[in-house]
Amino acid sequence: MAKNLSPDRILQLGFGFWATKTLLTAIELGLYTELARKPMSAEEVTKHFQFHPRSVRDFLDALVALGMLRRNGTKYDNTPETAAFLDRSKPSYMGGMLEMCSRRLYKFWNDLPDGLRTGKPQNEAKTGGNLFEAIYKDPELVRGFLSGMTGLSIGAAQAIAKKFPWKKYKTFVDVGAAQGALPVQVALAHRHLIGAGYDLPVVEPIFMDYVRSFKLQDRLRFHQGDFFKDPIPGADVIVMGHILHDWNLEEKRMLIQKVHAALPKGGAFVAFDAVIDDDRKKNAFGLLMSLNMLIETTGGFDYTGADCRGWMKDAGFRQTRVVPLVGPDAMVIGIK
Amino acid sequence: MAKNLSPDRILQLGFGFWATKTLLTAIELGLYTELARKPMSAEEVTKHFQFHPRSVRDFLDALVALGMLRRNGTKYDNTPETAAFLDRSKPSYMGGMLEMCSRRLYKFWNDLPDGLRTGKPQNEAKTGGNLFEAIYKDPELVRGFLSGMTGLSIGAAQAIAKKFPWKKYKTFVDVGAAQGALPVQVALAHRHLIGAGYDLPVVEPIFMDYVRSFKLQDRLRFHQGDFFKDPIPGADVIVMGHILHDWNLEEKRMLIQKVHAALPKGGAFVAFDAVIDDDRKKNAFGLLMSLNMLIETTGGFDYTGADCRGWMKDAGFRQTRVVPLVGPDAMVIGIK
Repeated sequence: MAKNLSPDRILQLGFGFWATKTLLTAIELGLYTELARKPMSAEEVTKHFQFHPRSVRDFLDALVALGMLRRNGTKYDNTPETAAFLDRSKPSYMGGMLEMCSRRLYKFWNDLPDGLRTGKPQNEAKTGGNLFEAIYKDPELVRGFLSGMTGLSIGAAQAIAKKFPWKKYKTFVDVGAAQGALPVQVALAHRHLIGAGYDLPVVEPIFMDYVRSFKLQDRLRFHQGDFFKDPIPGADVIVMGHILHDWNLEEKRMLIQKVHAALPKGGAFVAFDAVIDDDRKKNAFGLLMSLNMLIETTGGFDYTGADCRGWMKDAGFRQTRVVPLVGPDAMVIGIK
Repeated sequence: MAKNLSPDRILQLGFGFWATKTLLTAIELGLYTELARKPMSAEEVTKHFQFHPRSVRDFLDALVALGMLRRNGTKYDNTPETAAFLDRSKPSYMGGMLEMCSRRLYKFWNDLPDGLRTGKPQNEAKTGGNLFEAIYKDPELVRGFLSGMTGLSIGAAQAIAKKFPWKKYKTFVDVGAAQGALPVQVALAHRHLIGAGYDLPVVEPIFMDYVRSFKLQDRLRFHQGDFFKDPIPGADVIVMGHILHDWNLEEKRMLIQKVHAALPKGGAFVAFDAVIDDDRKKNAFGLLMSLNMLIETTGGFDYTGADCRGWMKDAGFRQTRVVPLVGPDAMVIGIK
């Protein structure tokens, strides 16, 4: 063994679930929401959450050491980040997806070895269910899932509002719009645009609530539909964010073809996801997201920019390019 | 929401279980051990491990992006670190503890909310078992556990061999010696010392194998015993590494008292653990280790340097001090 090698990175990654599950537990139990009302001592936290006194201070102080809480004297309080993003009473709450991680995904990922052996999902599907059916049946779950998706998409949506040449276009549709993070950010930044969200009927009231909270209901409307059964509504620009990766190759190609059919000549398709670097060596989050598609879907996978540009060209798009957004996300643009 | 706040750190920590479980799966399945024999293509990995083809490249490329594999052309290979520390056929293997994380602890930590509410362990104890009994009954598990402990202790053991004033002393005993990482490192660095490991009888052959592999059997012997029932053998220096944190306060005090009784005047007690900083705001690993004691034990907890110095003083030690070792570990020294 070379003397200058250290196992530190291996140990840090291997024991990483301790820190992750500690944070997810705090989110799941609503600790940040309570602390946003008022800072609390360990005794107050114990009482409010009906904890056993044994490990409360370890739990809270571990969150302090992780930068996920602050302690002043004996009182625990939010950091600026946890106050902004993990307080359920704020519109900027993005813990919905992390609550799902705590309640569902963390344990499903324990079966990654089974997933690798079988190629089959390791979530509710194992007992005959289906992720999207399970979520879309339950209005509470839908709301949590959709606001969670907003948390995951808002950074990319803001970057797309800035980086895509919206001045050239008049109308857009966001396919699989969820709560409407992208339509809202784009409409806020470009007052000449008329847009729409397209999603399953159950999404409409949640989308419209969100749109109205930004007073954008005059320029943003909702189209009900199922992109497997129905045509995609036409517009100058069609966006799909965190959608293509859910589906297998045949389904991906079918969706891209439908988008192509719905666009006018010169129209643009903007697909965004955690697009993997073409050499598949750098975007760890994108590659792990693709493994998450193994856990969660029957055929979904994430893809490189080159993969997506190839599918777009095969569907008839004249020009394609990849534009990095924020963090692991990028958009692939296809011009008809 | 302040404009310059970013949810990146929250998301990175919250989704951290994806990367962790991917690494743990590779260790559990023996991928690093196979790749140490020869680099393999994705197809060879698929065949050897009987994987479904769907997600093999995502799994392997995610490990590449995490710095936990290398890919040259189509062949996947170990990094220098994974070759040194995650190949089961090398004595420097330290995956034993991480295999336990993958097979046991990852899923037990899913019940952290229950642990916080009840103050009770969330491992085999939930169904009537006991961690140490379960491990110590099964010779295979014992060997994996003990070599895992070596992986976790070897850095601290090397630091103690350097930083403790061993020249002043002639004999030492490591109480709860496990495989013998500490006695071996100390004996290698200081040829004048005569030492011993003290642990349960089942540990003896594993300890002696390890000691003989360093040709130290003339200076290191083994004492069988149970530190709850039997006296601790006397020596100039008594060491306890990653032991005190397993037990409740009363048990901790009893063990410290037993050590005090076994030392001569001027003798030294060296306790090492992931000692928490006195302000309990920095050593995240130590605080999370203490939560791990909630998951794994009925009363164990990690402690600050000030806590331990106080218990040592109460037991009659004249002088005490805390000396940082490597990473999150520190030693607390008490002089009788």
